[in-house]
Amino acid sequence: MATVDEHVAHVASLVRPVGRETVAIDGALGRVTTDAVLSPVDLPLFRNSQMDGFAVRSADLPGTLPIAGEVSARPSDPAALEPGTAVRIMTGAVVPEGADAIVPVEDTVVDGDRVTIERVRTPGEYVRGRGSDVRQGDELLPAGLRLASRHLAVLAAAGLATVDVRALTRIAIITTGSELIAPGATPVLGQVFDSNGTALAAAVRAAGAVVASRVHVGDDNGAMLQALRDAAAAADLIITSGGISMGDYEVVRETLEPLGARVGTVAMQPGGPQATAVFEGVPVLCFPGNPVSTQLSFEVFLAPLLREAAGLPPALHETRRLVADVNSVPGKRQFLRGRAGDGGTVALVAGPSSHLVAGLAASDVLVVVPEDVTGLKAGDSVEVWHL
Amino acid sequence: MATVDEHVAHVASLVRPVGRETVAIDGALGRVTTDAVLSPVDLPLFRNSQMDGFAVRSADLPGTLPIAGEVSARPSDPAALEPGTAVRIMTGAVVPEGADAIVPVEDTVVDGDRVTIERVRTPGEYVRGRGSDVRQGDELLPAGLRLASRHLAVLAAAGLATVDVRALTRIAIITTGSELIAPGATPVLGQVFDSNGTALAAAVRAAGAVVASRVHVGDDNGAMLQALRDAAAAADLIITSGGISMGDYEVVRETLEPLGARVGTVAMQPGGPQATAVFEGVPVLCFPGNPVSTQLSFEVFLAPLLREAAGLPPALHETRRLVADVNSVPGKRQFLRGRAGDGGTVALVAGPSSHLVAGLAASDVLVVVPEDVTGLKAGDSVEVWHL
Repeated sequence: MATVDEHVAHVASLVRPVGRETVAIDGALGRVTTDAVLSPVDLPLFRNSQMDGFAVRSADLPGTLPIAGEVSARPSDPAALEPGTAVRIMTGAVVPEGADAIVPVEDTVVDGDRVTIERVRTPGEYVRGRGSDVRQGDELLPAGLRLASRHLAVLAAAGLATVDVRALTRIAIITTGSELIAPGATPVLGQVFDSNGTALAAAVRAAGAVVASRVHVGDDNGAMLQALRDAAAAADLIITSGGISMGDYEVVRETLEPLGARVGTVAMQPGGPQATAVFEGVPVLCFPGNPVSTQLSFEVFLAPLLREAAGLPPALHETRRLVADVNSVPGKRQFLRGRAGDGGTVALVAGPSSHLVAGLAASDVLVVVPEDVTGLKAGDSVEVWHL
Repeated sequence: MATVDEHVAHVASLVRPVGRETVAIDGALGRVTTDAVLSPVDLPLFRNSQMDGFAVRSADLPGTLPIAGEVSARPSDPAALEPGTAVRIMTGAVVPEGADAIVPVEDTVVDGDRVTIERVRTPGEYVRGRGSDVRQGDELLPAGLRLASRHLAVLAAAGLATVDVRALTRIAIITTGSELIAPGATPVLGQVFDSNGTALAAAVRAAGAVVASRVHVGDDNGAMLQALRDAAAAADLIITSGGISMGDYEVVRETLEPLGARVGTVAMQPGGPQATAVFEGVPVLCFPGNPVSTQLSFEVFLAPLLREAAGLPPALHETRRLVADVNSVPGKRQFLRGRAGDGGTVALVAGPSSHLVAGLAASDVLVVVPEDVTGLKAGDSVEVWHL
């Protein structure tokens, strides 16, 4: 029987790093840069005015100057400023050669074609220098950055319409079990609604990966083999639920074990039965089929890898105090469902059994009871993982 | 001049609550429930086995019992268990009437068509009772819950293929300014790349809303009016950038002021010029056009409302200690760009000017300097907002 830590390491060794792709900046929110991005230009691109007002030579102030023209923020290549004159200028407009300061309109008195400015000005006042934000060749963004709106804004401002980012991990989902029917259908006795397809697809997306395909197969080894082939053609990674225990009609085990799958048990509860394989070059993670086991297997073994690849922060792990006693199974790491409470406390919300999907839905943390612990008392500290 | 708090309240009064819609559970990740969801069924749907093993009457144990048949996890309506017999059973299979315990296969010795069980069993052992997870009519999920994978899983498990959620806020984006060109184009002197369209679209998505439309208009009041009409037909809210100051060619002000827009100044820096309007029944928020001003206006006035509507947690606000002195403008709230450092510190990363898009991209917090403060010293505490 493998330990949780051993299986975590084994899964990490199977999951390969993602590739890279070039995407439009307008589709790059939340993607992760592969490389540092250097600015192809100076920003601002040109010397421009910070205010609506007058462009002047500071040496001409104070004084009354003839107004020699106007520069708007519309594209323009203004004539150089003649000494002893002023030109009207709008915010963002090109500052004419020869001008070294902008006087805000509210600090001026205009009389016909002349403007009076009563105070001296420091050279450079209200002038945004070319390259004063960033110089051509400077780093705009570092490698490994998860792109937020302000990062995309600076790429746009520098004229970059695309950015190189990590590819998304494409995951194929195969759920198994002839007893499963789709939500919305009408069950007969013995049938249950498939929640694993929904849960895994949503968990994949929440972890920053994409669902490449999703299919349900019954107890049919031929159908399972075909599903694996289809999945391997479309995905970087295949995940399955169900069909790996020692009973009959275990399609995942029966299909993959002859191909070299590693089928075994991990010392955890829920989620003990676990298998892995490599099918046509694509790693396959096989989770047990009980809904809580499926979801916790994803959370424990795959979610951290996917979140890291997607540049998402790891789930918060912290220590809290139990509000009631807890029994546990020796030799296995237990993942109990809990709710974080006031004052650093945590309460269990459902029993330990792997079928309690409503209990899991009502929880907001997993309470982690280590392998060597058989019981904890109210007030004891325990590790919790936020969901 | 309005205070920041006054404009926050004014914007909040304009933005209307979103409606509701029914969506498929497989498209509901991250959506917010409008109502508590009650379970239409008992979960589990039927009494079933927690283990692969034998279904027995606990009163018959210990002993050697004839094996009277098998129940698999395939849909079945098994015959009642005859007293004094056992039936093979798979995990998840219907427990026959008459059986009250499951004996795991590893606790049994099978010899031909007989099974020996040496230990007594408690009634109910390894039996998952119908409704033991949740009862028909019980609350599966509360109202106002942002749906994660485990929540969608319990909806699926209860057979619910759809869920009622808050509608997404549809936002139309209009950027203005004849000097702007698209990233990737080649500028002439006086032209700058439009970063506001990219920044606002990404910020809308990051805040849990959707971009209903996005258009850039130059200094053309007719085009602006048409853009507003198109936007109002498609969106719950319109945001614009640029064109609201007192200079010439101010298309947003010139178009909306005659229709009753409120154009003014908010006591903040960057971001002073602000306007609002209601156009054909749709609220319009008009942000200034300098890139940093545009982005900060969104963050200060709209992002909190959108995040709340989308069930996202508010941005983290906390107190940190400055690593260097800061000057500020009296009478205005300043939003400076900073980076959070070790030990609860914060350092500024760029000047206060509204054109420093690279500086904003390099920051991870806004440093908020209140209106009545003109300067802060290294070591002083200051409020920071995480981006």
